[in-house]
Amino acid sequence: MDNNTFGNKFSFTSFGESHGLAIGGVLDGVPAGLHIDLNLIRKELERRKGRSAGVSARAVREPDEVEWLSGVIERDKGTKDQGQGTKDLITLGTPIAFIIRNKDARPEDYEWLKHSYRPGHADKVYEQKYGIRDWRGGGRASARETAARVVAGCIAKQQLSAKGIAIHARLTQVGSETDPARFDEVIRAYRSEGDSIGGIVECVISGIPAETGEPIFHKLQAELAFAVMSINACKGFEYGTGFGGVDQPGSVINQISGGIAGGIADGTDITFRCVFKPTPTTPKALAQCASGDQTIKIGRHDACVAVRAVPVVEAMTALALVQFL
Amino acid sequence: MDNNTFGNKFSFTSFGESHGLAIGGVLDGVPAGLHIDLNLIRKELERRKGRSAGVSARAVREPDEVEWLSGVIERDKGTKDQGQGTKDLITLGTPIAFIIRNKDARPEDYEWLKHSYRPGHADKVYEQKYGIRDWRGGGRASARETAARVVAGCIAKQQLSAKGIAIHARLTQVGSETDPARFDEVIRAYRSEGDSIGGIVECVISGIPAETGEPIFHKLQAELAFAVMSINACKGFEYGTGFGGVDQPGSVINQISGGIAGGIADGTDITFRCVFKPTPTTPKALAQCASGDQTIKIGRHDACVAVRAVPVVEAMTALALVQFL
Amino acid sequence: MDNNTFGNKFSFTSFGESHGLAIGGVLDGVPAGLHIDLNLIRKELERRKGRSAGVSARAVREPDEVEWLSGVIERDKGTKDQGQGTKDLITLGTPIAFIIRNKDARPEDYEWLKHSYRPGHADKVYEQKYGIRDWRGGGRASARETAARVVAGCIAKQQLSAKGIAIHARLTQVGSETDPARFDEVIRAYRSEGDSIGGIVECVISGIPAETGEPIFHKLQAELAFAVMSINACKGFEYGTGFGGVDQPGSVINQISGGIAGGIADGTDITFRCVFKPTPTTPKALAQCASGDQTIKIGRHDACVAVRAVPVVEAMTALALVQFL
Amino acid sequence: MDNNTFGNKFSFTSFGESHGLAIGGVLDGVPAGLHIDLNLIRKELERRKGRSAGVSARAVREPDEVEWLSGVIERDKGTKDQGQGTKDLITLGTPIAFIIRNKDARPEDYEWLKHSYRPGHADKVYEQKYGIRDWRGGGRASARETAARVVAGCIAKQQLSAKGIAIHARLTQVGSETDPARFDEVIRAYRSEGDSIGGIVECVISGIPAETGEPIFHKLQAELAFAVMSINACKGFEYGTGFGGVDQPGSVINQISGGIAGGIADGTDITFRCVFKPTPTTPKALAQCASGDQTIKIGRHDACVAVRAVPVVEAMTALALVQFL
Repeated sequence: MDNNTFGNKFSFTSFGESHGLAIGGVLDGVPAGLHIDLNLIRKELERRKGRSAGVSARAVREPDEVEWLSGVIERDKGTKDQGQGTKDLITLGTPIAFIIRNKDARPEDYEWLKHSYRPGHADKVYEQKYGIRDWRGGGRASARETAARVVAGCIAKQQLSAKGIAIHARLTQVGSETDPARFDEVIRAYRSEGDSIGGIVECVISGIPAETGEPIFHKLQAELAFAVMSINACKGFEYGTGFGGVDQPGSVINQISGGIAGGIADGTDITFRCVFKPTPTTPKALAQCASGDQTIKIGRHDACVAVRAVPVVEAMTALALVQFL
Repeated sequence: MDNNTFGNKFSFTSFGESHGLAIGGVLDGVPAGLHIDLNLIRKELERRKGRSAGVSARAVREPDEVEWLSGVIERDKGTKDQGQGTKDLITLGTPIAFIIRNKDARPEDYEWLKHSYRPGHADKVYEQKYGIRDWRGGGRASARETAARVVAGCIAKQQLSAKGIAIHARLTQVGSETDPARFDEVIRAYRSEGDSIGGIVECVISGIPAETGEPIFHKLQAELAFAVMSINACKGFEYGTGFGGVDQPGSVINQISGGIAGGIADGTDITFRCVFKPTPTTPKALAQCASGDQTIKIGRHDACVAVRAVPVVEAMTALALVQFL
Repeated sequence: MDNNTFGNKFSFTSFGESHGLAIGGVLDGVPAGLHIDLNLIRKELERRKGRSAGVSARAVREPDEVEWLSGVIERDKGTKDQGQGTKDLITLGTPIAFIIRNKDARPEDYEWLKHSYRPGHADKVYEQKYGIRDWRGGGRASARETAARVVAGCIAKQQLSAKGIAIHARLTQVGSETDPARFDEVIRAYRSEGDSIGGIVECVISGIPAETGEPIFHKLQAELAFAVMSINACKGFEYGTGFGGVDQPGSVINQISGGIAGGIADGTDITFRCVFKPTPTTPKALAQCASGDQTIKIGRHDACVAVRAVPVVEAMTALALVQFL
Repeated sequence: MDNNTFGNKFSFTSFGESHGLAIGGVLDGVPAGLHIDLNLIRKELERRKGRSAGVSARAVREPDEVEWLSGVIERDKGTKDQGQGTKDLITLGTPIAFIIRNKDARPEDYEWLKHSYRPGHADKVYEQKYGIRDWRGGGRASARETAARVVAGCIAKQQLSAKGIAIHARLTQVGSETDPARFDEVIRAYRSEGDSIGGIVECVISGIPAETGEPIFHKLQAELAFAVMSINACKGFEYGTGFGGVDQPGSVINQISGGIAGGIADGTDITFRCVFKPTPTTPKALAQCASGDQTIKIGRHDACVAVRAVPVVEAMTALALVQFL
């Protein structure tokens, strides 16, 4: 499992199990002197918890406080007593290590999983691959790992922001519904039936300099697809005209670059879309996988993971782009 | 442009300009003693040239003979005189370098491009990025580079094949047409109008061992997306339920893994689809970009690049999978 | 500073400043099911602190307790109450993150360095490179970072040990003295004069399988040199006949392989030697660098760093070798 | 054998067997617009062949003409007819592939090696590692591979030169002789006895900007040691005070940085030394390894490989340094 590092210039190494002591990460390659906006990180972690009716109970309760172990110093020691909210950090150029403790871990909720595999989850493949498995809440495979991605992504975003690059993702579809005003309602309906539903996230990158990207294997679209497809539950990626453009002739769509030509940004906005499947572990689904008289305690899950995927899509996009700076 | 290498265990470095002396590649990490089936390579290179009405004239004429510079020895010197067709190669475990000479290069066809940019092509971004550009037929950005990918992919395929892994891609849609029997007809129609059209390629991987893949960033689907999205003109990638599954509830689709769970193969077939946009450089399109009385000689192009993308999709899939062995 | 990772198969990412909250590391690629002997780690960390008269006061006081954040589970929960000494850990195959808190940090000892550079130290180059510097005790450049290397090296050693590979380093020279019985005496003499002295460490690798190593750039000796030369104060590396063999004819030394032929282990023991310069920051030396009436408080330093380098040489050797398994 | 690439920013992939069709390389990451001085390359290849009495007959005869396959265009087509000597090349920013054909290969000289291993050579470990071996003149293990390193190193040097960085290596010792005026004489004496002798090469890097290097694992001295120790027959590396400084106290040598502090260049000249063992394959040595009545034809070898190592040391130094720009 030598695969917990993303990127090689601004590299992010993620670690931690869902119900262990902590999750966290190490960022290497962040330039010295970068200002880290702790409020932005707090805001993005809140966004990742979600606000809609479809969010798991744990997500809301877990405080997600980031502890900075190395690579940063406080900006202004004078304002330290005024509370954490006003304190900011400056990077030293050395590796930035941070952790988020797992305070609300309830491994006992998952005891039944010690000898069972949840359908649609990675439980079984992990055991096959490693011979050993931290069964508690999915262990390493849990989407809780994405909290570390959001922290790393925020730091990447601030570096991008200093160069005028902005990333905005939003939920554009839930099931067959495309009117954002009705998303909560749709999700609530699935939740009340013990079910779940998929969603589509659209992301716009603006301010990207022409020349960003590489022409052969490391095309900008390939790196974006790689970053986004590494998010749990993501089943597809498209940009520009995407799958929908298949039936349009070249004479019509040849002026639509989607912001990238030959793997290299052309300076216009880049728009991509990605789809998230519904959570497989729903009350409805799990009722079918318990054998005999086994009592199942279902962990705490989301009715539409696409909701909480939005800031993770932004984070992974930022981590992909920052490699090219 | 330090990006001409794909993979790190079975690494493939691609080189060469479309209208230079040769294109080629170096494969490093191929085990010693692997048998290279030269007929398969010849067959796949033919397939890449395409057979349908939509193929460019150059593709048909370019002989695409592979010269092996290093890393292999001939299997049986005794049969050497019986012609190239019966000779096979055995790998030495050292880097395999090969070239394909550009025999039918006609740089003079592209002289007008020295001071013009074709719409929908990488001409302009290359000049911005490098300050210098081999304008002849797209230079490095030309899809001719994919011939080297096909050669490398064939070697990867043979290594996969020895482990029982098979890769089969096919064209499943051209424009809005999904009946393969009518594809040629549709393409011919666009060609006759001086236009071009998109297509969808579906690829099935069978025999893939459970445990293939990595759980966090290097998920199997992320690596496949990265490989496939690096092919010229590819605009989207999806696997399993893909974009179409967005409106299906978790209780219905939770048993459909698409062959991958948590980034790791579960041992069942993996099916993915990718979409190719139409060639931008068509007679119709180019007529609009010439300024004033400039005479435009249009290079030789395809009416539906998705046709020729099929073996390239297989090659990149093989190169992605072989990293995990 | 994207360079805090060593290795790519069993990768070790190091983080932390000397006088910050903690130093630590992340190990990725360690197989699941490996038993971690905590006693060995404790023993090696003690060894790194040194036992001779030449060791700095801080090194002795710093408890160096390792906290394991992820990637491991306890072997036997039943024996948990019997104290830390009896508990062992099993790896999960996920990244292993650990920290060692900086408990005895005394940044105030280094306040004078805020505006001064110590001769022979990295103070000045850091400030030039990063524009910002954690001046406290050398910050990231401090040899305290090697404690994390020792922890990582111990895990690598245990993996090597399971394959019958052993690594033994020892001090073979201090100044011009080559009799180990007199090393303490020599070091004490330099210390009492406010001075310091160099030393040579010899390391023997036994049980290394023939075939270990790669023939061109990643020759076994090149990887060992890279690993060892990355240790602070190391000024040279030689193996086999080394520099001393320069005046011996081929007919005499051609049977002495030093355990490596063409970059690949031949199955016999490998012996290499490396030299460590004396600590530059001694009372004697610092007396010269203070300007005017500035009061210098000298941090706590070693009279012969080669003493404490011995387990670090073993750790880096283990980290280099484990990449080839 | 995934190890034929050196570096990751200006990466050099080497390929080719000693007695196959060609040796060569691919350089990726060379910026567009760099002028390649073909005369310098020719001069350095000549220098690698050696001028002293100790050089093998093949080295002198092999024309070592470089064929450029990709990544470059000719500077001035107008002067093309004036002969190859006046033509220069400009890089395109795309991968530069080049080959040197093996014209004077005499595989028949090595037929006896098909079933024998030369002492002190990599013949046996290769067979163990790969199960298959190109026995002709050492195949991939032959020092002929260093010709490709010299070509790549020349391009790196030209990039360094543009930034004011110069690299000068020279032979400073042959056997126990340190007077350059007597080197030829000493080598000739060993040769006439069918024997060989070692040597020391010293290299000075001037103009290196302070800030070059990285502070933890990728220290400048570690990267230089890695690069130089990857050259065939190199047994040791030291810089600054080296092994000789072991008996000098800190108060004396603390002002001698050797050009590097904490892994980072301090802006002064860097001096390092490396030692090369004598060629193991001498008439005298080989006479002992033939079994029974086997007739041994000895290939063409050098009495002092250190002579020809000088430009290779420069080339590897250039390749190491250029990664940091």
